[in-house]
Amino acid sequence: MTASVPVRHIASRDNPDYRAWLRLAQGRPGRRDTRIILEGEHLCRAWLEHKGPPLVLVVGESALSLDWIGPLWQACAQGRRIVLQNNLASVLSQVEHGPAVFFIVEPPVPALPSHITGGSLWLDRVQDPGNLGTLLRTAAAAGLRQAYLSDGCASAWSPKVLRSGQGAHFALDIHEHADLAALAHRLDVPLAATTLEKAELLYLKDLRQPCVWLFGNEGQGVSDELLARADWRVHIPQSAAVESLNVAAAAAICLFEQRRQQLVAAVKVRSARREKAQ
Amino acid sequence: MTASVPVRHIASRDNPDYRAWLRLAQGRPGRRDTRIILEGEHLCRAWLEHKGPPLVLVVGESALSLDWIGPLWQACAQGRRIVLQNNLASVLSQVEHGPAVFFIVEPPVPALPSHITGGSLWLDRVQDPGNLGTLLRTAAAAGLRQAYLSDGCASAWSPKVLRSGQGAHFALDIHEHADLAALAHRLDVPLAATTLEKAELLYLKDLRQPCVWLFGNEGQGVSDELLARADWRVHIPQSAAVESLNVAAAAAICLFEQRRQQLVAAVKVRSARREKAQ
Repeated sequence: MTASVPVRHIASRDNPDYRAWLRLAQGRPGRRDTRIILEGEHLCRAWLEHKGPPLVLVVGESALSLDWIGPLWQACAQGRRIVLQNNLASVLSQVEHGPAVFFIVEPPVPALPSHITGGSLWLDRVQDPGNLGTLLRTAAAAGLRQAYLSDGCASAWSPKVLRSGQGAHFALDIHEHADLAALAHRLDVPLAATTLEKAELLYLKDLRQPCVWLFGNEGQGVSDELLARADWRVHIPQSAAVESLNVAAAAAICLFEQRRQQLVAAVKVRSARREKAQ
Repeated sequence: MTASVPVRHIASRDNPDYRAWLRLAQGRPGRRDTRIILEGEHLCRAWLEHKGPPLVLVVGESALSLDWIGPLWQACAQGRRIVLQNNLASVLSQVEHGPAVFFIVEPPVPALPSHITGGSLWLDRVQDPGNLGTLLRTAAAAGLRQAYLSDGCASAWSPKVLRSGQGAHFALDIHEHADLAALAHRLDVPLAATTLEKAELLYLKDLRQPCVWLFGNEGQGVSDELLARADWRVHIPQSAAVESLNVAAAAAICLFEQRRQQLVAAVKVRSARREKAQ
């Protein structure tokens, strides 16, 4: 690809824009900097698809010739495209051997709804960035649309969480620093939690109705205060060989058991209608 | 706790034993060193329970007074207990703020069976240590007993994988550097893989029979060669909001859907017997 218009190049590590991006990439943004950095083809394309053009597109020199840069480049206004010297681009990159392409964007801050009516994911102090990203990815894959993250969760828009979310961030409304106990008053759907005490077997619980799924800290689980508010208490019948499941694995099992029950129910409704029509 | 027998202390960072343990903890063992290091109460207790005493127990000075050190200490022969100066212990520790207790052990190397008859997990080049540990933990929780890891997988006994495995390593026979294509000839159970092409819906597939579950590399999935050998090809009906699931989340969904079907079948068998007896 050849750029037919003049493009801004950055070749100095002291460039103030470059320095600010580096801070974003290293997960230590400037105090008032609310922007984030997205790295790689997948995340940038997902942003473009869901949210539109970025504030700035940053491309490493040697990535300019790649075919898939074209649509990203075209989507950005002229003054918002920046080419970075290769050595600066590889310092900025948090991925090994990846072609260097970045979006600088402002993450959405959705307004809190007055009533929570649909299926959503609530996370209480989930600290590990890989777990948090996987939880968001699994929630989006299961068809949930909202995520509420308490204080003490990893930062949802940090590079590590973005990387393991694989684009799920753009399919969900993500509410950070959510006061989950206070939000429980806004629930129009059941609050479901996994626990061992006074819990029903997951597979015997009727999960066809949407609910809020609550999962907690890797070591301590959900706080007692929140657990006391759960309408549904379920347990996953695991082998005694290990003490517990990883939080993201437990969520995958619960969310997709609900999806299974909903799909089976939808199939039954359809075939009942078909029979009636005949 | 006070030690009533003389105990070996290490106070120098140049101590050759200490230097070797440090290499284990940093995931770069000496070339002929086949030992591994386990850190923390949970992993050490799990080893003791499943495998017996370690080669060496290493305790940081300030951890000596903890109650739960007692049983670990008692389980080790006198010459195998070593107390480490606190500053050395905290350098050895890969965990923040944890009390420093370590087992030095030789990981088991199980013999390859001539026939693979039970449920097991096959992993083709799963690179991320967190994913690998979570996969092992989920497999053990689902009741599988064997894991076969191809070349290109993360090292199963590395500190990061051990940490995310949370003791699952001791409930499974783990075969590393397994030639999965060659092992396919030893299978007496179906080989199951997730894929989008020519695949049945996971929830419509009869999974009551044990099988081998095959999962692949985070970016590339299972190799074509292995996928061609799959007897069961299933897909997980995810929302179109994201392109794919994390490999450990996908495995959790598949393994626990199988567990659900097996549990439901067992309940049905039991109630049929009960009816017959009446």
